[in-house]
Amino acid sequence: MISDLNNIFSDMVNRSKRSAIREILKLTQQPDIISFAGGLPAPASFPIEDIKNITNQILEEDGAAALQYDATEGLPELRETLVESYQNQGVNCDIDNLIITTASQQGLDLLGKVFINPGDKVICGLPSYLGGISAFVSYGAEMIGVPLDNDGMSAIELQKTLEKLSEKGEKPKFIYIIPDFQNPAGITMPEKRRLEIIDIAHTYDVLIVEDSPYREIRFEGKPQRLMYQLDNTGHVITLGTFSKIVAPGFRIGWVLAHPDINDKLVVSKQSADLCTPTFVQKIAAKYMKSENYEKNLNKTIELYHKRRDVMLDGFRKHMPTEVTWTEPEGGLFLFVTLPEYLSAEDIFRKAIEKKVAVVIGNVFYCNGEGKNTMRLNFSYVNEELNRIGIKKLSETIKEAIATYKSNKKENSFA
Amino acid sequence: MISDLNNIFSDMVNRSKRSAIREILKLTQQPDIISFAGGLPAPASFPIEDIKNITNQILEEDGAAALQYDATEGLPELRETLVESYQNQGVNCDIDNLIITTASQQGLDLLGKVFINPGDKVICGLPSYLGGISAFVSYGAEMIGVPLDNDGMSAIELQKTLEKLSEKGEKPKFIYIIPDFQNPAGITMPEKRRLEIIDIAHTYDVLIVEDSPYREIRFEGKPQRLMYQLDNTGHVITLGTFSKIVAPGFRIGWVLAHPDINDKLVVSKQSADLCTPTFVQKIAAKYMKSENYEKNLNKTIELYHKRRDVMLDGFRKHMPTEVTWTEPEGGLFLFVTLPEYLSAEDIFRKAIEKKVAVVIGNVFYCNGEGKNTMRLNFSYVNEELNRIGIKKLSETIKEAIATYKSNKKENSFA
Repeated sequence: MISDLNNIFSDMVNRSKRSAIREILKLTQQPDIISFAGGLPAPASFPIEDIKNITNQILEEDGAAALQYDATEGLPELRETLVESYQNQGVNCDIDNLIITTASQQGLDLLGKVFINPGDKVICGLPSYLGGISAFVSYGAEMIGVPLDNDGMSAIELQKTLEKLSEKGEKPKFIYIIPDFQNPAGITMPEKRRLEIIDIAHTYDVLIVEDSPYREIRFEGKPQRLMYQLDNTGHVITLGTFSKIVAPGFRIGWVLAHPDINDKLVVSKQSADLCTPTFVQKIAAKYMKSENYEKNLNKTIELYHKRRDVMLDGFRKHMPTEVTWTEPEGGLFLFVTLPEYLSAEDIFRKAIEKKVAVVIGNVFYCNGEGKNTMRLNFSYVNEELNRIGIKKLSETIKEAIATYKSNKKENSFA
Repeated sequence: MISDLNNIFSDMVNRSKRSAIREILKLTQQPDIISFAGGLPAPASFPIEDIKNITNQILEEDGAAALQYDATEGLPELRETLVESYQNQGVNCDIDNLIITTASQQGLDLLGKVFINPGDKVICGLPSYLGGISAFVSYGAEMIGVPLDNDGMSAIELQKTLEKLSEKGEKPKFIYIIPDFQNPAGITMPEKRRLEIIDIAHTYDVLIVEDSPYREIRFEGKPQRLMYQLDNTGHVITLGTFSKIVAPGFRIGWVLAHPDINDKLVVSKQSADLCTPTFVQKIAAKYMKSENYEKNLNKTIELYHKRRDVMLDGFRKHMPTEVTWTEPEGGLFLFVTLPEYLSAEDIFRKAIEKKVAVVIGNVFYCNGEGKNTMRLNFSYVNEELNRIGIKKLSETIKEAIATYKSNKKENSFA
């Protein structure tokens, strides 16, 4: 090996860390662990039989094209299908507004590549999806956190943050928002807040990145319009994905944005991977047009709805009163807040001993806060193990509270 | 749209240009054009029936896993299959040496991300694969070109270049080499030259990136050992791909490298796309282990061999004596050198009028040379059109030579 290998890596990779979640997931992958830690869809939600039939059709009718290179922007029929689906929702867009990416993680990475110079500011929620933060930080972004309230990112705090930057002659490259069933908080932003934030973005002349991987997985409540639709001035860039509505093993995502932005993303994608696999794009396009697509999506929603209910039920039955949690209207995650005197890292280690895994919420806070928070996934674990897992987790927390209180008592006697 | 969109793009995207080839390909995609311009495999080489059978088997036996997320490093069974295949060739490697990428283009991009800070030097051949150059330049690399001779990159010129850098206290991040059936030159580096270059890399303590997408497509001559194998000290990083041996529509590539390098590539890949599509990795792993893999590869080699022969035959029959070309022992491309007084761009335009397309060789020269060169692909066009196309291209060149000579004569009379 060359003598100075450790000195010749780029600044970019030196800024990147192995995902904390990824390392935690390794700990939690022992087969007897009940894991609420990952973000995996339920295998039962995968339309295996449909995919088989469609793949056979494609290979019979269009096999050579499915195995060949295709356009960097994405397969025309897939882009058209997605655009039509948005248009049917009332979104004003056409084919130039939509490009395919190798899952929405590539969308996040390309946005970093296209917009961020080292030292540029990016605003995100406290907490926010780690994969977004990591991608932006790898390009040298300085993340500025804005707290969430029950309606998602606080408009007042966002305005304050932008005003402060503006006083210094600065503005962030974009505001990163996950408005539907936020990862990790499980909070959905109502239309009023969306409009307030769009208004602020207009005032301060700044882009919004709307990351929307869970939007279609809604159990209850009123579907919210995309920020992209509410804005309609080119300020919003929206990311979507098949990972949660069909299957993550396809790695298909998309970006809905102004053509001038897509143009730059396409140039970057060309050197990133030339094009997203044609084979899976062909399958996805055909599947999305089949009637089973909607049926399977509804089945998935029902399944996750049930699993969320089981988890919330377990929480209500077993959690000590000092603990609070979000009750998401959809998506895959909920967020737990422990009393401030407890460390989620400590609970994580004790829960692992009881064969239950969660993710420490702290990793989602770009400012290092959230040490008493945890994210739980409810899509992956089945109902029976869900019940057992939540009971064990609650016991772990109860014990930790009891220990804290008894130590405190002792200390007050001392 | 925000007011200053054009000013907020990153330095990185401002360094990237739309691929010149990509823009040329648009010109050449009229259906009646005979295109030697792209780098597409022949659709006839795709094992459609085999892929169908294997996909059905996978969805029946292992469907849920095929549709789920998998490890960033790549699917274990695919990595193992590839490692075994290398071991069978005598390459000293194990599973930690090999990671999967979303085609080898992603490998090139990740190498850029992991090694290159703006202003860093990278050495490449004159000419070299444009997708490699573009990826490195997007991260701010300054490309330094080293001429090729009949045995590939000149060892003497490489040494001179490294010595000059060394005198200034500099060394490049790596030397980018395509040793087998080089794109675009069609030249293969014999073992002697490989060893000389490895020796130089050791002396100057610098990494080699060995890009090897065509190696398995050999028509004749002795298979050369990988530079990775000849080095065996961790100085060589090798990129491979299924794009030319199975199908580009899968977008599966791999990197063979020292584990310390792979470790950084994996961290970068995590934020690039989390993982390569599990679905296609499963199919590729199973297909590679099937007996039809070798059969289909041999069929592909035969097909391209025939097409190369038809092209060379056309050249010998029709090309004016002032024109020279390479005669590759494998791969997909050959390289044509026109007399220096001709402009390949001019020939390109005239050939397009005759419905024949090539790529101007100049785009592969990081130093702007090669204005009288052209790359021709022989894998895509069938034999009949190949014959017609080469005849027309030869006519175009003959006419241009005649025009030049008659102008020169006139001028000499003036």
